Amino acid sequence: MTAIRSDAPLLLSRLAAIVGEAAVVTDATAMSPYLAEPRDLYHGRALCVLKPSAPQEVASILALCNETGASVTPQGGNTGLVGGQTPDASGASVVLSLEKLNRIRAVDATADAMTVEAGVTLSQAQDAAQAADRYFPLSLASEGSCTIGGNLATNAGGVHVLAYGSMRDLVLGVEVALADGRLLSTLGALRKDNTGYDLTRLFVGSEGTLGVITAATLKLFPAPRSHAVAFLGLRDPAQALLLLNFVKGRAGPMLNAFELVSRQGLELVLRHIPATRDPLAQPHDWYALIELAAFADGEAERAAADILAAAIDAALAQDATLAQSLDQARALWKLRESLSESQKREGGSIKHDIAVPVNMIPRFIEEAGRRLSAAFPLARPVPFGHMGDGNIHYNVSQPVGADKAEFIARWAEVNAIVHGVVHEFGGSISAEHGIGRLKRDLLRETKDPVALDAMRAIKAALDPNGILNPGVLL
Amino acid sequence: MTAIRSDAPLLLSRLAAIVGEAAVVTDATAMSPYLAEPRDLYHGRALCVLKPSAPQEVASILALCNETGASVTPQGGNTGLVGGQTPDASGASVVLSLEKLNRIRAVDATADAMTVEAGVTLSQAQDAAQAADRYFPLSLASEGSCTIGGNLATNAGGVHVLAYGSMRDLVLGVEVALADGRLLSTLGALRKDNTGYDLTRLFVGSEGTLGVITAATLKLFPAPRSHAVAFLGLRDPAQALLLLNFVKGRAGPMLNAFELVSRQGLELVLRHIPATRDPLAQPHDWYALIELAAFADGEAERAAADILAAAIDAALAQDATLAQSLDQARALWKLRESLSESQKREGGSIKHDIAVPVNMIPRFIEEAGRRLSAAFPLARPVPFGHMGDGNIHYNVSQPVGADKAEFIARWAEVNAIVHGVVHEFGGSISAEHGIGRLKRDLLRETKDPVALDAMRAIKAALDPNGILNPGVLL
Repeated sequence: MTAIRSDAPLLLSRLAAIVGEAAVVTDATAMSPYLAEPRDLYHGRALCVLKPSAPQEVASILALCNETGASVTPQGGNTGLVGGQTPDASGASVVLSLEKLNRIRAVDATADAMTVEAGVTLSQAQDAAQAADRYFPLSLASEGSCTIGGNLATNAGGVHVLAYGSMRDLVLGVEVALADGRLLSTLGALRKDNTGYDLTRLFVGSEGTLGVITAATLKLFPAPRSHAVAFLGLRDPAQALLLLNFVKGRAGPMLNAFELVSRQGLELVLRHIPATRDPLAQPHDWYALIELAAFADGEAERAAADILAAAIDAALAQDATLAQSLDQARALWKLRESLSESQKREGGSIKHDIAVPVNMIPRFIEEAGRRLSAAFPLARPVPFGHMGDGNIHYNVSQPVGADKAEFIARWAEVNAIVHGVVHEFGGSISAEHGIGRLKRDLLRETKDPVALDAMRAIKAALDPNGILNPGVLL
Repeated sequence: MTAIRSDAPLLLSRLAAIVGEAAVVTDATAMSPYLAEPRDLYHGRALCVLKPSAPQEVASILALCNETGASVTPQGGNTGLVGGQTPDASGASVVLSLEKLNRIRAVDATADAMTVEAGVTLSQAQDAAQAADRYFPLSLASEGSCTIGGNLATNAGGVHVLAYGSMRDLVLGVEVALADGRLLSTLGALRKDNTGYDLTRLFVGSEGTLGVITAATLKLFPAPRSHAVAFLGLRDPAQALLLLNFVKGRAGPMLNAFELVSRQGLELVLRHIPATRDPLAQPHDWYALIELAAFADGEAERAAADILAAAIDAALAQDATLAQSLDQARALWKLRESLSESQKREGGSIKHDIAVPVNMIPRFIEEAGRRLSAAFPLARPVPFGHMGDGNIHYNVSQPVGADKAEFIARWAEVNAIVHGVVHEFGGSISAEHGIGRLKRDLLRETKDPVALDAMRAIKAALDPNGILNPGVLL
């Protein structure tokens, strides 16, 4: 079954019968924000943008699309980095925005759970948890506009994965509209439920290809009462690995974040981002930003001071500073969080969101740097990120003074070098951003073919007509 | 395709060609330990018991069974409580023991990961972690004989789920033989890998119905350096809930276990288990056993003393004792761990492994007790277990002096009452033991039919001929 253009008016009127005329957007100007993502790397066309207001409307839309063969592109906050939320160029696709499914259905502090709809933004979800004296730990740069539905569909990560896991670890249940138009629910505050296959986590991270998530029950946690943020000067990534294991052994689950920054990266931040300053007296080739969180007043600060002193004694860091106020802590985090922006201001940058086993990070950085400098002697690798998770944003800045477009045109060559090293270390070509359209072909080349076949079999079982986000992931 | 008896000699000789004659057991005496589980509640017949020595042999066995239609019952340590590891009565099934796949392939302390084969026992895996100064937190009563493969297939839980999660949370990757005879691998020490569907966690907890797990990469953790175990006297489960949330807020992830025990349960232990004594001066209707773990010397003890004192001040416990030595800690844990055994010595007991949202535990216990006492006035409910996870082993002991067989004959009636209350509170009929053969029909009655259909579709996609553990789960 394939939707043909001449069916479009009929399809639109049947869709309007489900969601109401006002929720079927066909005007080009009104549609345009949904057809390209903010960086405009991906843009497509669509028959319409739909804005259902209830899970049952989502299910009915899918039933109709399944009957007519119209393909569906689900969309949350439209902040994804791999094109998974953008329709293709055919113009036959229906963009399904979940923005009106924005109710916080329940926050239950004593069960450490909250049920929210897909269109709730991440920061709204964080705020709802906080209002109940609880903590929802997922935290990302785009948290003001990305939505829980998109976070679930892409198994979002961020800076606190080390202590709390990715979105897949933070979900207790989901409500999903299936391709056949039925609603499946595993919602509920159960911490343990051993009654069959883990459907919840199968849908999480499936990038809208197995169903459309309409709501989820998320885990909540007690809110930490003390935090400590430190910035340490290091010799090299090998020392960072020793330091990481040292801190893990002494801080246990108090260790909330362990981020790696290079001197080159820090210098870009100091150059381009106003109101930043070098946090240590002397420059160091590498740095770690460490955050501890604890549940007694002052405990994180006390533990951090002890651990830092011991680390310096053990020659696991050259120097360290421990934030003495919330403002100082924010200033240290700002150095880490401004790395992407400062690279952008510096010129062209070719990006990789990779993971290797944590203990392979030093060798990975060394080997990728060696091969890149052989092929692109003047390009500047600026690896940084979630060292504690083995997840490095291996971004490569253009040579100083080079032509940006010319450098960016080498994207595939640079990718091939970096991903080649990733492959040799048993790594992943997408640690946290997902596959989308960007890495679909790359996935086919790098993933275990038996695993790919299993994924295809599951896709065919749950979406036999292939209406859900075609062109994405598989 | 169905195996018919006359094909048996041919099938046996082809199986022997894969694993060698010595690894095909057909002698009745040698087979018998594999055909019944220790309690002898489930027993079956089999064409043979196979003991492959390598993952590729497991895959070849499945290919052959898939071709001939012979059904396969995978078996680990044969300690499961729901009959999932026992073949049916047809005698046409092949029991596939993973006991010879018992290599610890790699323990990597600096990556916090180890890769072990399915036949490694849980205690061997714990020991291998400890030898590398790491901690593998899964801990169960049967850990000396249950195997990692069985723990994975059943998504095993135990006493530290509160801090570390169930087996599904402790696995980074699996190696699985599929029904079509191919090996699928997601093995590796990656903490983040966002490249498609979560196949790993789909196989974990699928009870051998989607594939046969031959190895897994498991998460390791730094070993805690201090522990504190406390036993608190409580008024009722409502007070236990207040106490749980109080301790969670102050201990955060230091809280390692929060177990609920009733006075009635404790009295059974004191009566039947040698060398046990009442840990508090006065009797209390309810008790909580709490364990904290921390990563600085003495920290758990210090935190526990502070938190206990604050809890008593806040009237969240009537009395408390904090173990002052490892021996005292073990004695307190023994009270909790002897509950099942003491119930067995007391006579017949009808068991339930249920979960409800944590904050519903007090109401659940009250309501289930009310309805049971209306129907069975002399039966003695002895609810106990993992309150922190909302998981109660709601066991019902026979009336004093009653006939055991007569009481056990009412199993289904008692089940219906308890599971009725579970349903009303949005709970699960299997919190950690799985479905197996015991709860297969019950699952059909209680699970969301859309979820059941999705499970069936996935089963059909990955095992189209239905050779994997038929009669179990679905």
